[in-house]
This record gives sequence, structure tokens and C-alpha cells, in this order.
Amino acid sequence: MTPRLGMHTLTAGRGLLFGGDYNPEQWPESVWTEDVELMRAAGVNLVTVGVFSWARLEPEPGARDFGWLDRVLGLLGDAGIAVDLATPTASPPPWLGHRWPETLPVDESGHRLWYGARNQFCPSSPVYRERALALVADLADRYAGHPALALWHVGNEYGQICHCDDSAAAFRAWLQNRYGDLDGLNEAWGTTFWSQRYSDWAEVITPRRAPYLINPTQLLDFRRFSSDALLAHYRAERDLLRARTPDTPVTTNFMGLFKPIDYWSWAPEEDLVSNDHYPDPADPLAPARTALVHDLMRGLGGGRPWMLMEQATAAVNWRPHNLPKPSGQLRLESLQAVARGADGLCYFQWRASRFGAERFHAAMLPHAGPDTRLHADVRAHGAELRRLAPIAGTTVPARVALVHDWASWWALDERGQPSDRLDPTDQLLSYYRPLWERGVAVDVVPPSAELSAYALVVVPNLYLISDADAASLTAYVRAGGVLVVGPYSGVVDPRAHVRTGRFPAPLREVLGASGEEWRPVPEDRPVPCRWSDGAAFAARTWTELVRSDGAEPVAAFTEGEPAGHPAVLRHRSGRGVAWYVATLPEQDALAELTARALADAGVTGVLPDVPPGVEAVRRGPALFLLNHGDDDADVPIPHRAEDLLTGTTAEGRITLAPRAVAVLRPLDTP
Amino acid sequence: MTPRLGMHTLTAGRGLLFGGDYNPEQWPESVWTEDVELMRAAGVNLVTVGVFSWARLEPEPGARDFGWLDRVLGLLGDAGIAVDLATPTASPPPWLGHRWPETLPVDESGHRLWYGARNQFCPSSPVYRERALALVADLADRYAGHPALALWHVGNEYGQICHCDDSAAAFRAWLQNRYGDLDGLNEAWGTTFWSQRYSDWAEVITPRRAPYLINPTQLLDFRRFSSDALLAHYRAERDLLRARTPDTPVTTNFMGLFKPIDYWSWAPEEDLVSNDHYPDPADPLAPARTALVHDLMRGLGGGRPWMLMEQATAAVNWRPHNLPKPSGQLRLESLQAVARGADGLCYFQWRASRFGAERFHAAMLPHAGPDTRLHADVRAHGAELRRLAPIAGTTVPARVALVHDWASWWALDERGQPSDRLDPTDQLLSYYRPLWERGVAVDVVPPSAELSAYALVVVPNLYLISDADAASLTAYVRAGGVLVVGPYSGVVDPRAHVRTGRFPAPLREVLGASGEEWRPVPEDRPVPCRWSDGAAFAARTWTELVRSDGAEPVAAFTEGEPAGHPAVLRHRSGRGVAWYVATLPEQDALAELTARALADAGVTGVLPDVPPGVEAVRRGPALFLLNHGDDDADVPIPHRAEDLLTGTTAEGRITLAPRAVAVLRPLDTP
Amino acid sequence: MTPRLGMHTLTAGRGLLFGGDYNPEQWPESVWTEDVELMRAAGVNLVTVGVFSWARLEPEPGARDFGWLDRVLGLLGDAGIAVDLATPTASPPPWLGHRWPETLPVDESGHRLWYGARNQFCPSSPVYRERALALVADLADRYAGHPALALWHVGNEYGQICHCDDSAAAFRAWLQNRYGDLDGLNEAWGTTFWSQRYSDWAEVITPRRAPYLINPTQLLDFRRFSSDALLAHYRAERDLLRARTPDTPVTTNFMGLFKPIDYWSWAPEEDLVSNDHYPDPADPLAPARTALVHDLMRGLGGGRPWMLMEQATAAVNWRPHNLPKPSGQLRLESLQAVARGADGLCYFQWRASRFGAERFHAAMLPHAGPDTRLHADVRAHGAELRRLAPIAGTTVPARVALVHDWASWWALDERGQPSDRLDPTDQLLSYYRPLWERGVAVDVVPPSAELSAYALVVVPNLYLISDADAASLTAYVRAGGVLVVGPYSGVVDPRAHVRTGRFPAPLREVLGASGEEWRPVPEDRPVPCRWSDGAAFAARTWTELVRSDGAEPVAAFTEGEPAGHPAVLRHRSGRGVAWYVATLPEQDALAELTARALADAGVTGVLPDVPPGVEAVRRGPALFLLNHGDDDADVPIPHRAEDLLTGTTAEGRITLAPRAVAVLRPLDTP
Repeated sequence: MTPRLGMHTLTAGRGLLFGGDYNPEQWPESVWTEDVELMRAAGVNLVTVGVFSWARLEPEPGARDFGWLDRVLGLLGDAGIAVDLATPTASPPPWLGHRWPETLPVDESGHRLWYGARNQFCPSSPVYRERALALVADLADRYAGHPALALWHVGNEYGQICHCDDSAAAFRAWLQNRYGDLDGLNEAWGTTFWSQRYSDWAEVITPRRAPYLINPTQLLDFRRFSSDALLAHYRAERDLLRARTPDTPVTTNFMGLFKPIDYWSWAPEEDLVSNDHYPDPADPLAPARTALVHDLMRGLGGGRPWMLMEQATAAVNWRPHNLPKPSGQLRLESLQAVARGADGLCYFQWRASRFGAERFHAAMLPHAGPDTRLHADVRAHGAELRRLAPIAGTTVPARVALVHDWASWWALDERGQPSDRLDPTDQLLSYYRPLWERGVAVDVVPPSAELSAYALVVVPNLYLISDADAASLTAYVRAGGVLVVGPYSGVVDPRAHVRTGRFPAPLREVLGASGEEWRPVPEDRPVPCRWSDGAAFAARTWTELVRSDGAEPVAAFTEGEPAGHPAVLRHRSGRGVAWYVATLPEQDALAELTARALADAGVTGVLPDVPPGVEAVRRGPALFLLNHGDDDADVPIPHRAEDLLTGTTAEGRITLAPRAVAVLRPLDTP
Repeated sequence: MTPRLGMHTLTAGRGLLFGGDYNPEQWPESVWTEDVELMRAAGVNLVTVGVFSWARLEPEPGARDFGWLDRVLGLLGDAGIAVDLATPTASPPPWLGHRWPETLPVDESGHRLWYGARNQFCPSSPVYRERALALVADLADRYAGHPALALWHVGNEYGQICHCDDSAAAFRAWLQNRYGDLDGLNEAWGTTFWSQRYSDWAEVITPRRAPYLINPTQLLDFRRFSSDALLAHYRAERDLLRARTPDTPVTTNFMGLFKPIDYWSWAPEEDLVSNDHYPDPADPLAPARTALVHDLMRGLGGGRPWMLMEQATAAVNWRPHNLPKPSGQLRLESLQAVARGADGLCYFQWRASRFGAERFHAAMLPHAGPDTRLHADVRAHGAELRRLAPIAGTTVPARVALVHDWASWWALDERGQPSDRLDPTDQLLSYYRPLWERGVAVDVVPPSAELSAYALVVVPNLYLISDADAASLTAYVRAGGVLVVGPYSGVVDPRAHVRTGRFPAPLREVLGASGEEWRPVPEDRPVPCRWSDGAAFAARTWTELVRSDGAEPVAAFTEGEPAGHPAVLRHRSGRGVAWYVATLPEQDALAELTARALADAGVTGVLPDVPPGVEAVRRGPALFLLNHGDDDADVPIPHRAEDLLTGTTAEGRITLAPRAVAVLRPLDTP
Repeated sequence: MTPRLGMHTLTAGRGLLFGGDYNPEQWPESVWTEDVELMRAAGVNLVTVGVFSWARLEPEPGARDFGWLDRVLGLLGDAGIAVDLATPTASPPPWLGHRWPETLPVDESGHRLWYGARNQFCPSSPVYRERALALVADLADRYAGHPALALWHVGNEYGQICHCDDSAAAFRAWLQNRYGDLDGLNEAWGTTFWSQRYSDWAEVITPRRAPYLINPTQLLDFRRFSSDALLAHYRAERDLLRARTPDTPVTTNFMGLFKPIDYWSWAPEEDLVSNDHYPDPADPLAPARTALVHDLMRGLGGGRPWMLMEQATAAVNWRPHNLPKPSGQLRLESLQAVARGADGLCYFQWRASRFGAERFHAAMLPHAGPDTRLHADVRAHGAELRRLAPIAGTTVPARVALVHDWASWWALDERGQPSDRLDPTDQLLSYYRPLWERGVAVDVVPPSAELSAYALVVVPNLYLISDADAASLTAYVRAGGVLVVGPYSGVVDPRAHVRTGRFPAPLREVLGASGEEWRPVPEDRPVPCRWSDGAAFAARTWTELVRSDGAEPVAAFTEGEPAGHPAVLRHRSGRGVAWYVATLPEQDALAELTARALADAGVTGVLPDVPPGVEAVRRGPALFLLNHGDDDADVPIPHRAEDLLTGTTAEGRITLAPRAVAVLRPLDTP
């Protein structure tokens, strides 16, 4: 069921959205006219306005200056360019921190973080909240019903963490709500360890700098609280907006696999999901990593179209050494997002700034002006996006689910683990890559997701698991599903307490296997393994001492201490099959394992054979083929088809130059 | 002369001690019964209780809750398991830091360190001291005479450093005691340098964060003070315990070559020496390093048996990537401690925690329960230790002394040195290794030790030396001793003032050599050297421009600027011989040098030939042979002997599998 | 025109100055007599006294103790040794920080920096200033007219930075002076970016720790302010001195390419330029780097002789691993300074300290005493310097100017750049090296310098450029000059705002070229290039997408994306020639480019052929040849000449052993 508001509210009559952040307050008004003209020439149909305008809208406490914004929205509206209007609360003016220093965030060592950059607010500050909401209310009152207003953009890239006294008080309130009383807190935090028992709520603080390893449950709960504290603020702003403009959707821009914020809890509070994503041109895994993030965004929106709120036309300026994008990359990356469900393709930002800390960040209109290679690429891309209007609103069907969980990630990100080299997002990507390479569509889902519609569920790592989620995974297999579970899963409960007994305690029955020791291995010594049918492979970093309790050991360690012990097990359980992987196999072995699990599940990719470097994904009526490699790729295609981008017809096979894209809609055979 | 109290107080009637930290407050009482049963099955005869129980014993200021501890000690006592009862003052409850923030430690930058971990107290805080002593007194009153009480364990792993105002005041009092008046302080600290003269005691502070290199004598005195401040607190607790339980020995657990604490000054304040030691499975030098630490413990106790208070059954969790121990390593390491004088073999901890920052630290009873490989090893080891009862109370005779000094280590650990790559403990290990490899027993001693009983004294580095200690070394040689002195020794006096004139000023007469320049060399360019009888070797990192003033240059540098200058000198002085090493020879050359010095001293190892990787040490009636290598080792043995561990008889030679141990008691020839 | 005061005031009647820092307050008076005797024997004719004597002169607030200094100056004066008397304000006594903690500096995170080291003062502290000036006035009153007083040495190595509230207030005053009103500040800082608009001066602070990238103009202005705040203090001291001793020159010791201080603004406030320089023996580029720094000092003094205030006789002690100097290096380095314009050759310090943080820093008189290799070298060097008396006062003529600017360096040292690997001083050295290797004399000049006298002006990097300086460079070329401009120049204006349009906007006309994209390249992938006449070379790190607007593309990129685009361009403009280098060519290619530009300018080196490793420079009547290599060098010389150092005659060619130096004065042909 599609909710009342969403991307369709925006794309109706507009097709795919194309645009970017627009910061007219940085420029004299004379430039605005040129901007609007150039936007129209480039096919821009939506811009985000006002993200950093608090100090301009409220130049001193309580004052209001909306005149300039009236004129900006008027100009844009007249030109038919829709406005994604931001609440400007991500970056308070200096006067807030100066007059109310308690609104400034404090780090775990007690350092106050000052104005001079951006984001300098404490999420739990009553003063910040009061000031922010007053301005948001006035902003919404003023622009409710404005013809240019199409979307609300609340704040920006939420992620602030604070350890001030206001935050400690809010943390205590959050904990009281979670645990009821001090006994509950002491039990959950395991405060009999290291004499940490709390005798009064007033003693409870955020995890400030301490002499040694801090209580892991305190750390975990502080992460939960920090995400929730920001969410509470987001909701307060959203509620003000919804009350005033019930027909205008509300979003806030996510940042992909961003650790501080649990987007599973945030996404249901939005009308549509939007994301900022900046692949690193120096990262050889960027194409798969980006696809994974896009699939996460689709998952956060329950499969519905989403919006790429920020990407870069070329190099960013916040890495130490910022590589540019090769020719064609701008278009390739943008179309990759379309292929994976994006209906909006926006950039940070429209016009490159002359001043400020991001003036060397690429923009749609560079310092050198419109008569440049880069701006020509932007215009060409804006034009071709119009040809993809039929894609808007369509979905990407998937029979494979990949499980990701923020709480588990947070819990594992703790100093006192067997190893600091088990990164859940690295494991996520490792298991994702062979699926992506085969053109198998994947939904990224939370552990609590309804799984029955999936043929295969992959859990690369779920260190923390609740009883209910463990039961859900078990039931899924019993009912006929295929499950793959990676190492060091099912270790702790939601309080981060170890689940005692052989591991993974809550899954060992469905897996038909159990273990007793985690055994990290030296990084420079891969562990030799062998499939039971003969082929050898290597694993690394991590092994477990596991035995079969009924599962078939399909691969085993072959040398040294673990020799003979199972490395991979497969267990028929009920009507389904469960796999357990007790190590980190090298990528080729993970591809082999994936192939076997896909065979168990009866799932195939969108094409029988996808050349290396090519991404193949079906969205709505079209098959997207994207060549991320540096060589021509020759791709066999199943049907005679029309390339929506070019209008040409293809049949049998299609050759893609490096960074080329085809969007093939099947034609009737002639 | 054996003091009235010591390890013998504990081992009498019990044999070697076997057990670990036991934290029943983390578990429901139902588990306690199972614990005691499993302990008995595993041969456990002593457990440490209460280390982190302050918050449980004093749930709010002034309250007392001893009931649970009564039950724990009752259960253990009834089962015949002795209790090492801890004063719980290492980790104050949150209420202490919350109500009295001045008890929290402050780092050199002014950051307060909060509760949430452990160890959060200022050693000089009057409030902390008052609260801690009140509880200790009540604890001792309650359990004085309890049949289970066998040993007091004061605090835990002392090492706190603090820069708060209370600490500054205590530092001033310590300095007044040391130097009398401000003139004394100004002279000792050399405050005419950089305009640092103090005109009032109130100006004197701990070495807080400063713009550049801090006064080295201030730094050195602060290290001395920090060790002494904790010692004063330890003594205050100990005195309370001694007054109440004069027949129960008192200890606190050391941490080997732990930089912050001068254990030479601490050990005489204990009834027995105990130590926590965690060899790193990733460290190829761990066997020798561990042997050195064990010899240090024996030295701290004046040669008497000591106790391994904490070791790990398998992997720890506080390194970044924690390798497990190979099979047999648990036993090998524990028996290595026995070989070098330990009469107690304890672990952290009995049962693996479910929660808290150390729940992934290996224990005697793992999460997976008693039916595991690991617990089987624990039981087997507990059983075999009973066979070594005849070893308890015996000593390890040594004719070689190795000098280590904390003050010298601290003084050299200063930023403004010729090089930061001269680590005294690295040098200590380098000189120790050839002795260890040959099966030569070594006592680690302080520079003030009585040396006359030793045939060879090795001083790898003594950067700081007092006049008295220099005179003692000189007299030792004159009287017939053999002395080896490593580079950069004798450089400063106890105030860290340079001893002017050719170096090493206070030793140059006995060494018959003197120098004028320290010349660090590039790390990637070893310095070629040659023995006067022809063989070449390489040195590294450090050279000195030294001349013979009568000594025989037994090795010289052969290339570059230092070519022709002596690298090693040997001087007959009085009835003895003194060696000076003016560089860091590679390990093989150090072995050659050691062989020559041993020949001078007429000292040989316990076996004529020890295969690589095998440790050979004689303790009491037995010869311990431990194979640390990865291959079988074939060891010739001098007598027909019985292996105490197995009861079998060996003659001629014995083959040791990797990680195997033999404890051979000579038999009469048949 | 030579100013009234300068090095000539000192060298008149003395020849070259030779000496060092002398800290008699660290020694009993009995040592002073020996010091003076040894100084005379070593040819010392000037010492610096009193740099760290505040606590000795003012043992408590307001007290004065000059007696000891009277005796020191008396002794030195009687021995004919001139005194460079320091104001002791670099290192306040502990009582200042203790009684007035607001005089202590605060770092950007809010940490107070305490006494215990040195330099612990806030440059903007009114209390510090008042106390410092009162003492300086009394010092000058007392020693005005003293026969030994030859030079004033104000403070020491200025470089303090502070973020305290006093500093914030001073920063605001500085900004008010610069920008007039808040509108001016808001415009210059671009505060419409990220909502940073200031509504009240009280809100403006120094760039304290913030959550993300700080406003780059705020950072740049804070650097300007920090340099100016110290300069204001220096000037206040200097004015007191000048008023009392109008005939005694005043200096303060610089630190070469020291980032925090804009020496271009400082040097005109001195009577003579002095510098502290410590080449790293581990740095293979040290000879060229040192020559560059010496040329900078000459440039700071407008071509007049300068003084090497501090150098080391051997190893320093403030690097982590301090290599000694090879034999002959002491002399080679000192004579290199003479060759490049130094008339004073002084060391830190005369006698090695026994205590304090610098006691392991080499000195003229080492701990081991006068009967040492090192002191013999010092004496020999002191003696031979007398033979160079004819050199004193002479100049080093140069036809090439190299542009360096602190503000541009500061502006580029910002986190949000396209790359953090474009270091202006690295680029400076890269362009300097080929000139140095050819024996081409170079003046280092600021961008505002009068350029008409130069045949070639090299601008390795001028990221920030003012309109006036851009116009000056343009006019210079039009009038017949040859200009070389390195990449990423002309990017921002003095507010650090990007100059929009094709880059480098203010220079593109004179360069006949313009660009639109900066394109950093992966460090491990050099970019192939080719000269238009055929030879290939590689570039690295950085490329630009540039087109010719009239310039001749003399080299182009040959592979990958930039293939075919120009890498180096040469443009005839007016009567001159302008080169633009759009990448970082490898060193050989830079040598080729330099050769071509020198040919355009008609400039040659002092010798037709300089062997590798040999430095050749003409000063006054003499040709200095210095062999920095490890092999003998055979140098053809143009004239029959006398070596001033040896008195021998040379003709045709001369062979220099490693580290040998010749100072050749032409003789009439026989």
C-alpha cells in the first residue's frame, strides 16, 4: 500500500527530479536571475533552499527576515522549479551559542564545541529546541500554500552527539523510560561488574572519558539514546510542518550506512526517504558499496522510490586528497541510483561557493562558469533524465533479503571484543558483492522484517539479536526459507549480555551447529580450508571452534589447530535450509557459497551471465545495464529492446563502453 | 631467613595453589553451588573474592551489606577452598564520584576521568582515603578469624596517576620532605634553566600540559611521588588488616615490568609477592619475556616463592586482536611459572562474565560451559599440579644478577634524549635472552642489591645511577666479580643531572674506558663491527665515541665515522673483570659477549646443551624442561630421573613434543 | 641604502661574529672565569646572555636582582667579548602563571598550558605585557652604555598562539581595525555560508574547537592576528630599548620557514635579521633546504648581511632520534651561512647544561670538557673565521627572485582543499633546487617586492594573491621580465574567497592560459607527460585541466583523461615571457623547465658547470665552493684564485674532499 504522500507527490507531472542545493543567500540578487535561467537550461526541476539560513532568517534573537526568501521562492516558482524548503535548524547562528553556551555540544572529554563551523547544538538542549521550533513554526506559517513549496527538508544530516549536563538529564529520562527503575538499570547494565552499581538516578551520566574500558551496555544505550534524542527533535519539527501543510511531504537527508543514527527507526517518521551519497573515486569497491547503500534506502522506504538528495558532480573537498571523477562517471552514478529506485537525482550544490569551508566542493555550476566541460555534462544529464520519466514510481522486485541492524553494529563497535577487525559493514559488503555481481536484486531489511516473501535471507553478522528476531529467523527456515548466517552472530542479547551456552545460542538449533571458542587468527596468516567436494580456499582474521549438531559440514579447516573442524555448515531444518559460516572466507569462496545458497533458494540473477564490472538490475519495465569497468563490456540480452536513453533498438547482445549505461525496455519480437 | 608470613603460610597442607578470581556478585546464588562443585572437580583450592565489590558492600555512603559475602565465604570454606579476600577499594561506586567529584582523577591536560569503567580515584584524595579505609576496617573486623580467610588482596593493579589540586598539594608535601626547602627544590630541579625558579611552595604543581618539553626532574619526581602516593594508600590499608589479622599474609597484585610503580619499594611492604601476567600469543619473544618477569617477581620477594595471581586460560579481550593460545599453552605457561618460583597458579577469572567490559576475556569456565575443550584443560592442569606438591616452598638458585631500576627507566623515558629508541626494558630483555637460552638462572635485582654472592652482574642499562650504587658496582668488581655494563649507563645522577666529564663518569675507572659523544645511527643502517679475534657482527641504533683508558678493546667498529673506535671493552680491575658495551649489538653478538662474560665468571647453565626453544631451569629438587618451540626437541639429561608430572622414568635423553613439559627429579642410578 | 644600524655596527672592528648562547646563571661563578678563558681561546667574540633569566632577575613580583648580571657583563666586557643582551620575556617565572593564571595560554580545545616548560604566556595578556615591559625598561636603564653591550635580543623564537578570552578580545579589536564594522567582517568571512553571520562583535571568537570544518577566513585572520599580536609585543619592547640605547641594534631570532609568524612584516621592525637554523642530518635535502632558508634571511634583510643566531655543533635533542653530524659538517654548515650572507655564526649554546630539558643538546663545550674532538673542531672553526674578515659586510648579488608569502601559505593550510598534499614550502624547495644546483643566486622575496631588477621571477605557489600583486607580476612581464608560475596559484583573494571565472583569474591574461578544473591524481600513479620537442617526463599528485588562450603548450599530458591537455605553457606577453606549470613535474623535468626559463632570462650560474653536491655561490669578492657530497668533487674554476681559508693558490680546477670548502678570491693572472 502506497502512503498518501511520497515521491509520487513530487514526480507527478514532473518525472524524475533533477536539481540540487541552492544557497542564494551567498550571492547578490543579480546572480539569482542568471541562476534560474541556467537551471531551466539544465533541466532542473527541484532545488533545496534554506538549509543554512537560520542566521539570515533570524539575524538576532526573535527577529524575522523572510523578504529575501519570498523573492527566491517567487523567482523559482515563476520558473516552474519546485522547492524543497529546509528548516534551517542544522546550524544555529553564533548568537545562540554566545548567549546560551549551554546549547553548544560537549564531547566525551568535556570539551565544548564552538560555533565557527556548523552543527554546534546539543540535541537535548531545551533552549535550542525552543528557538528552533519557534522559527520552524513561523517558516511553515509563511510558506504554507506557497505554489513553489513541494517538499520539506528538516534539518540536515542529523548526527550530533553531546555529553553536557542537559544531555545527561535527558539520558536519565530515556533510561527511566526504558528500564522503569534503578534495579532495572543496574540489571541491564550489569553493574555488579567493576562495582558500578547506581544508588540514585542522579549518579547516572553519559559515557564520559574514564580511566579504562567503559561499561558496554552504557555505551550501547547512549548510542540508542543519541539517535532517539535527535529523532525526537526531528519529530517535533515535522509535527509543526504537518499541522500546517498536511499535503506537503516531509523528509530529512540520510547518510547511508551512517553509524550514529538508526535509520530503521527514523524512516517510518518520514513521508519519503532521501539520502546523501558520495562514492570515493579512489575506492575500487565503490560501485558495489553504492548499490548496497541504494538498496538500503529502498529498504528504509519499504520498497518505494526514494531520492538521492546530495551527490557530487565531481570531486568533493572533505577528503584529504580528493580525486576527480572520470568522464562519464557523473552520469553513471546518477543512473545507478535510478536503477536502484531513486526518483530524484540531486546534487550538492547548484553553484560553487566563493567562500566558506566547502568552496572547493564540486557543484553543478563551477567557479569557471557555464562554459565548461563539467556544466555541459550536467546539462546533458538533465536532458536525458527526461527520457526516463516512465521509470518514475516503479519498483525493484527482490527475492533476497540482506539483514542489517544498527544496534548490533553499535554493540560490536566496542573496545573489549575478541577482535576489532570484525566490521559488520565490511561483512555486509562482502556478502552483498557476489549477489550484486550476479545481478541478483537484494532488499536490505532490519532483523525484525517480515521475511516470508523472501527465498533467501542473508545475515552477514548479527552479533546482537533479540529473542523475537532469533525466533523469526528460525520460523522462516522451518517454513521453507534459506538462511545464511555469518560468524559471531547471536552472541549477545539486546542488553549486550552474552547468551551463555554453546553459540550462537538462539540460532544453534536451526543451524544444527554450535561452538565454544572464537579464535581470531593473525592477519598475515590466511587459514587454509577445503570444500567437502575438494576445492581449496582461504579464510582470514577469524575462526570459530564449532561442531556439527546435525548440520552437514560442507567446508572444513585443513591446517594447524583448527584442522578438521567445520568452517561452513549446511543444515536442513523443517522445510528450509540454514547455512552457518564460522570464518571470513576469501571473496571467491563467498561467491561459491552464495551460488550454493541461491541454488537452494531457486533464485537467479536478472541475466544468466553478467560480465565483470557490469551492474544489471531490473526496475519496473526496464533492465538497467551499467558498465563500471575500464573496458568495453559485451552483454547478452534476453529480448529485443529499446534503449530508453537513446531510443535505439538492441537485440542479442549489447556492447557497453566504459561508464556507459543502457536502459532497455523489451519490445515485442518483430 | 624466611619471614613469619609468606607463600608457605598458604601452601602448608595445600601444596601449590590453583584457582582464580571469583566474582559471585555477578551471578544468582543458585549458580554459586554449581561453582563450588566445579571448582572442587577442577582441583581449585584458592579463589580471590571481592575485588570489585565496594558498591555491593556499601550500596550507599556508610551503608554495609555483608550478608552475601558471609554466604560466599561460608560456601567456599565448607568446600575447603581457601579465600584470598580483596579490599574492594580499586573501584569506588558511582556515588563516590558523584557526591565527591574531587575524588575523581584528573589527567595532565585537566580532563576529569569519570566513573563508568574502574580505577576512578585520585590516590591523594582525603575523601577517597577516608571512605576506603572505613570500609576496609569493617571488612577486616567482620572476617578476621573466618576459617576460609587465607590471604588479603589489597586493591588491584595499582597504577593511578592524578594531576588534581589535591595531588598537587600532596606532591608539594612529598617534595618538602625530599628537599627540605625551596632552595633544595630549585637546585635539584635545575630551575635556573628556562627561568623556572620557584619563589613559593604554592607555585609548585604536577607536570601539567605545557607548551614544550617539561623539566625532566619535575617529571621524574612526579613519577616517584605517584608511586609513593599509591604505596602510602596501600600501607594504610595493610596496617588496618595487620592490626586485625596478624597471622594472615597481605599482598597486592603486581603487573610485571609495569612502568608507573617502583615495585622495589613496594615488595618489602608485602608478606608475599603476587603478579598478574598475560603473555601475548602474537609475541615470538613471549617465553623469554615471561621468564624475565617471573625472575623479577622472585627477585622482588628476595628469592622466596611468589604467586601468579592472574593469568589467562586462553585469549584476553583487551588487545585489539586477541589471538587464542594453542593447545597445551595454558599448561606450559603455568608450569613455566612454577619452574621460576611460583607456588600459586591463579587465573582471571573463574567463570566468564555475561556482562561488563571483560565478558570476552577467557575464564576457567567459559560461556559455553564445563563440557568444553578449555574447561577440560583446566581440570587436567588442576589435577597434575597436585603432583608437584614437593616443589612448593623450594627456591631457584642463581649466580647471575641482572639489574633493573625503575627510577632510571623513568628518567630515560623523557622526550629530550639523544634518542627515543633506547628502551631500558628492551635492553633488559636483550641481555636476558642469551642467559635464558643457555639455561643460566638469573636473579633480577635492584642496583642497590648486595652483589657479593653473584659471579656475574649484568647492567643492560643504568642511565641514572647514584654515587653509592656506582661505588657498589666498582667494589663488586674489585673484589673479584664480573660486571657487564650496557651503553648510556651512568649518565645522570638521581636528580637527573648529567654527570659531567667523560662518560660514564662514575664507572669509567672500573671500566677502564671513557667516552665523549653519544652518536645515534640511522635505523636502516646497521653498523659493522668486528671482534678483535676476527668475526664480524652488526650493531644498530646507537653508538658511542669511546676510548680505552686501560681496557682491552675486544670489538671495534669497522666502517664509516666510528671505524677503529672500540665497540666492546674488557677491563681487569682488582680481582675482577668489567665489560663495557658502547652500542646495541645484534642478538648473536650479544650471545657471544654473554658466553665470554660467563666464562670470565665461571658460570654454566643447568645443562651443557639446551636446544633452541627449550627452557631449562632447576627449582629445588627438580629440573624443569619446557619446550616453547613448534617442533619436537631432543634434550640430553644428566641423570636418570623421574618425571614428577607423569611418574615415568627418563634416562640419557628425553624428547619433548611442542609445548610439552618435563619436571625431572634425579633418581639414584640403578 | 644601508640603515644606520645593522650587522656592520657589530662587525666593525670585529670581523665575522663567532659565539653562542651563554647561560651563566646555570653555573657557579667559579665556572664563569673558565668559560671566558675558553671562549677567548676559541675565538669567541660575541655571546648572547640572559634569554631565560626572568626568574633570576625578578625572583618575585617587582623584585630586581641585577648583581650577577653586572658581574657577567663585566667579565665578558673585560675579555673583549661583546654581549648580545636578551630581554628575558620569552619564559616568565612560575610566579606569573601562579598568581595570574590568565597570563597562561589556552589551546583551541580550551586546555590551559602551564609553566614547567617555557613560552607559557598569552601574547595578548595585559598582565604579561605590563610585567614584561617593566622589567625590560629596568634592564635597558641599567645596561644602557655598558661597554660590553653590542646588540639587543628581544624575547626568543616568538610563536605563541592563544585562544583565551583576552586573546578573543584582542582578536576582535584587530578585526575591527581591519574591517571597520560587522558588515565588513560578515562580508569578508562569508558568513552567509553555514549560517555564521555575526550580529554583535561580542560573539566573535578565535577559531576554537568546533564540530566540523571551521570558516577558512576566520582561520586565516586568526593566523594574521596571532603573528601581529606577537609583533605588537615585540615592538613595545623594542621601543623601550631604542629610547634608551639609540645606537645599539635590536633583533629577535627567527626560525626560517616558520609557519606561525609572517617574517615579512617583522623584519622591517628589526635593525638586523637573525635566525636559528638546525638542519636535520637525516635529511638528504638539507643542503638545499638550508641554502633556501639563508636566502630567505638575506631577503628579509633586504639583501644586507644577517646573523645565524643559533645552530648546533652536533646533534640536537628535540627530534625523536638525533643523528650526529659527520666530521667536517659543523664547519661546512657554518661556512654555508657565510657564503649566503651571514656575518655572525653563533650556536646554541656555549656550555652544555647539566640539567633541564635541553641538557642533551650539543654545545660548543660538551659535558666531556674541552679536551674533546668536538671542542677542537669549534676552536679550529673560530680560528679560520678570522681569515674571512674581508667577507664581512659584502653582499650576494642575485638576478633571480623566488616568491614566498606567509598569508598564502596559511590560507592553503586548510582542511577543505582539493588536496592536502600541495605544500607551498615543498613547492618552494622543488623550484629552488635546480637553481641551487646550477649555482644561480636567488633572492627570496615577498609577492609585493619591487621586481624590476630581476631577470627571472619564480612563483612556485601563490594560492592567495592580491589584485595589486597580480598586477605587479603582470607589469613585470610586460616590461620584459621572465615569470614562472606554479600550479594552484591565483586561486583566492586576501579574504580567501575564490576568484571566480577560469583560473588563475588574475594572471590568466599574462599567462595566456586558463583552466577550469583542479584534478588531484592518485599518489601511486605518476602522470606521463611529454615536452613538445619529444622528451617524456612524469608529473605527480596534481593536474589541472587548462587550455591555451595564446600561450605555447610546451609540454602536455600524454595518457588517460588529461591526454593532450597542456601541462606546461609559455607565453610571450609584452616584452617578457610567462610560464605556467599546471602540475607537479618530477625533479628532472623541473630542472629542464628551469634551464629554459633561465635561457629566456639570460641568466647563468656562477660557474658553467657545477658537479652534483657542490654548492657554488659568489659573495662579495669571493667564490664559495662547498662540497655537500660524500665523494671528492672536481670543480673547474674560472680564475687563478687564493683560498682565503688556507692562503693557498688554485688555478684551473680544484678538488674538494667531502665536506670541504674553498673561499676563492680571484688573483691577477700572473
